[in-house]
Amino acid sequence: MDAAALWQRYQDWLFYDAGLGFYLDISRMRFDEAFVEQMQPRFNKAFEDMAALEAGAIANPDENRMVGHYWLRDPDLAPTSIIRQDIIDTLVYIEEFSSKVRTGVIHPPDREKFTDILSIGIGGSALGPQFVAQALGPDFPPLEVHFIDNTDPEGIDRTLSRLAERLSTTLVIVTSKSGGTQETRNGMIETKYRYEAQGLDFSKYAIAVTGASSNLEKMAHSQGWLATFPMHDWVGGRTSELSAVGLLPAALQGIDIRSILGGAKQMDGVTRTPELSQNPAALLALAWYHAGNGKGEKDMVILPYKDSLLLFSRYLQQLVMESLGKEKDLDGNVVYQGIAVYGNKGSTDQHAYVQQLREGVPSFFVTFIEVLEDRQGESVQVEPGITSGDYLFGFLQGTRQALFDNGRESITLTIPQVNAHTVGALIALYERAVGLYASLVNINAYHQPGVEAGKKAAASVLELQLQAVQILQAAEEPLSLQSLAEKMGATHDIETVYKLVRHLHANQRQVVIQGDPGLPSEIRLSAL
Amino acid sequence: MDAAALWQRYQDWLFYDAGLGFYLDISRMRFDEAFVEQMQPRFNKAFEDMAALEAGAIANPDENRMVGHYWLRDPDLAPTSIIRQDIIDTLVYIEEFSSKVRTGVIHPPDREKFTDILSIGIGGSALGPQFVAQALGPDFPPLEVHFIDNTDPEGIDRTLSRLAERLSTTLVIVTSKSGGTQETRNGMIETKYRYEAQGLDFSKYAIAVTGASSNLEKMAHSQGWLATFPMHDWVGGRTSELSAVGLLPAALQGIDIRSILGGAKQMDGVTRTPELSQNPAALLALAWYHAGNGKGEKDMVILPYKDSLLLFSRYLQQLVMESLGKEKDLDGNVVYQGIAVYGNKGSTDQHAYVQQLREGVPSFFVTFIEVLEDRQGESVQVEPGITSGDYLFGFLQGTRQALFDNGRESITLTIPQVNAHTVGALIALYERAVGLYASLVNINAYHQPGVEAGKKAAASVLELQLQAVQILQAAEEPLSLQSLAEKMGATHDIETVYKLVRHLHANQRQVVIQGDPGLPSEIRLSAL
Repeated sequence: MDAAALWQRYQDWLFYDAGLGFYLDISRMRFDEAFVEQMQPRFNKAFEDMAALEAGAIANPDENRMVGHYWLRDPDLAPTSIIRQDIIDTLVYIEEFSSKVRTGVIHPPDREKFTDILSIGIGGSALGPQFVAQALGPDFPPLEVHFIDNTDPEGIDRTLSRLAERLSTTLVIVTSKSGGTQETRNGMIETKYRYEAQGLDFSKYAIAVTGASSNLEKMAHSQGWLATFPMHDWVGGRTSELSAVGLLPAALQGIDIRSILGGAKQMDGVTRTPELSQNPAALLALAWYHAGNGKGEKDMVILPYKDSLLLFSRYLQQLVMESLGKEKDLDGNVVYQGIAVYGNKGSTDQHAYVQQLREGVPSFFVTFIEVLEDRQGESVQVEPGITSGDYLFGFLQGTRQALFDNGRESITLTIPQVNAHTVGALIALYERAVGLYASLVNINAYHQPGVEAGKKAAASVLELQLQAVQILQAAEEPLSLQSLAEKMGATHDIETVYKLVRHLHANQRQVVIQGDPGLPSEIRLSAL
Repeated sequence: MDAAALWQRYQDWLFYDAGLGFYLDISRMRFDEAFVEQMQPRFNKAFEDMAALEAGAIANPDENRMVGHYWLRDPDLAPTSIIRQDIIDTLVYIEEFSSKVRTGVIHPPDREKFTDILSIGIGGSALGPQFVAQALGPDFPPLEVHFIDNTDPEGIDRTLSRLAERLSTTLVIVTSKSGGTQETRNGMIETKYRYEAQGLDFSKYAIAVTGASSNLEKMAHSQGWLATFPMHDWVGGRTSELSAVGLLPAALQGIDIRSILGGAKQMDGVTRTPELSQNPAALLALAWYHAGNGKGEKDMVILPYKDSLLLFSRYLQQLVMESLGKEKDLDGNVVYQGIAVYGNKGSTDQHAYVQQLREGVPSFFVTFIEVLEDRQGESVQVEPGITSGDYLFGFLQGTRQALFDNGRESITLTIPQVNAHTVGALIALYERAVGLYASLVNINAYHQPGVEAGKKAAASVLELQLQAVQILQAAEEPLSLQSLAEKMGATHDIETVYKLVRHLHANQRQVVIQGDPGLPSEIRLSAL
């Protein structure tokens, strides 16, 4: 394609919304008109599916649930007045509560104000709040946020150790829809233990964000925690950023949550349009389908040229991969769907792996995110007439060009600034694009059946551990691994038995290994 | 394969080194003996290549350079006594200098001690130091490290704004081998400007880590900076963590750099063995080759089950992708090589994208990293007999099992702790594995020819910008985009011209756009 034709293609496909100041360019994806025409019936279906979802259909059939994240930013769309009022009341409650915390009306025992937030949650309960804190958190927030997003003892220790002197002014938010997420529960137990070790009454520092009647809610009520906020049944974890899950910590940090919601609502308006060329979420879904042949054959590399958007790719990993990574389609056919997502930020990643993107295995397409405004205020010139921001701009354009010249495809999003409004819009854009793409490939974007298998397997490992310890404690002499596994009736799980004794031994807990641990058949095991 | 056969396969392939306390398990990669036999000649060649490299061969033929990162941890291997002495002297200088800074012998003007480090660098000058700071930095380091690793004005502003009150006690390390890396140079200019705005003499706070006779070194000398440290010609950016690039900031944070070097040296000893089954780096390379058919057909997903190893995958993205992502092999054939790398940490990522890994598109293999010791000190029980660390352990084993049950392959590394010694060992392991794999697929792992194209394209964008501004300033009336591009003689670059005026307009600099910016053919442009 010559320069003039490419420029025409750019203009033909350029999407621009003046209200959002948002541009989408898919001209560097090498699809043709025939492909677009061929996809049109699928898009018609996708727009219908989406309209039904927004109207309250059971869009998550496996779990028999409505999918209502769009209502969060436009409660008038909610299918019942109860849901509508619930959304409105929750938002008011978040704002009032946050304001009281920030101003010290709600304060910790014996102290004037809370200074820090410790957010305990994982998956959708962490990735959205982390992304938004990084993108929008002020340089000196009224409360500084910290995260425990794992069940790693050392990670928990580090976070709590660094907070130690401020624990007495740290507000803890425990976020879990079911209240039964093990990592979150463990983080809470460990944190509570530290509060109590400092003589602090944990319930005076704790808030729960959880589903109605969950075990977490019951505990929070019975122990008299500071507050509980709802996590609705019709909001999934990976689309919960604009529910209390994301809005509460954002509001506590002084971030304008009405503006996040406003940006999302405005993008929802634009992406509701059932016309492909006028709908940027549909254009994204089209580009994804083209890139990976509707089968996820290419990875989605996310490259925002802006430090504050560093965590957007991690947020999108969950939103895209957990939504689209499915074994079966809605008709039960085995399809092994999904799109792998990775990326950090430009131009930094140019010095990491753009070498491979430009020259190496062509297993990806790039999404560039351009932010038009370089900074608040004036820039120094790093050369006559040139600023740091001009370089950032030049590197984005140059890399896009260099990739295209080598046959590598890319999408470019352009936003005017990183602010609450545009971050809300980006979240809404990708939520919609994922939903539409799921319809294109006929899968349920709103369940996650594969997550259970790992959890179940983990539970059986812990059962084996308790059993192994019991048998070793009862044994009169050291046992071989084989003998231990036989006594456990677990010879088919002997490798797991080996690993769990290795783990216990390394932590000087309950088990001693004698012999060379690299030769499992020769070790002898006894109770500590 | 039944349970007994799988257990036998596990034991047959289990690599264990008692000195390092290090295990490698590739039993869940589904290669067979025939594959191993078939690969043996390639490995023989790879071991020969590696021996030659360590002996000082020109292992980077395009750039006519020796590749000497192995000498850094064992100077006796260096091919000349000058290099040997240089390595030893640099290390002593790093230790002496760091000690003087930490104790206040070297201090900022009018203050007793430096409190913070601001590291300005990108690519290999940032990813290693960031990984090591996260993995090994103490909870309360003697100097806390911050990074500027981009040319994003807003990102620079955030870092400098948060440091503002402590700028007068912040030591700045500017790291750039050539001294000409634009992002680094811009970060330095912006930082220097802030120091001067506070009336501080930047040269009294600044250190350079750079190549001999680079422009950066010359500037540091002429301005009388605090110190300069060498970046040797025979060390590449992505293998520079164990040079002054990584060791200086580590030492300033109180990290035991001799132990990092010791761990790397010990792993080097193990991975120098020219026998496949006894060499964990070779086993890794074998597994990678098997997974991606020697063509990078599968992504490498890195899942350390430990918060402190979160940034290892970003470090490996550069090491693996920049080394292996090559268009041509050493004979000039077009091969499009590489392996894509992504991942964050377990069990956190189980709640993000393990859904897709287990059930979705099978475009990857996983590397689990297990850390045997859960934490320093005792653990609370979260259930009778069970700790948070047991859950972390269980989730790793359970996920590995669940993936394998669905035909997804994985490698498992096991280390006793995350400490300076094991982090050094991990770095050395992957450096060697990448080098061996490059030999297997016959590419140069030590150059990065594709990085230049983006830089050149960026430079031409900046030239267009200066030209566009000049023409608009000389124009007597507003110009159409077409007319501007014609006057510039840049109609083939009209899209770039459009974007650069959009960028300037958004920053209220030099250019005003009238009309709908979403309709490029209708806008009118004039000078501000």
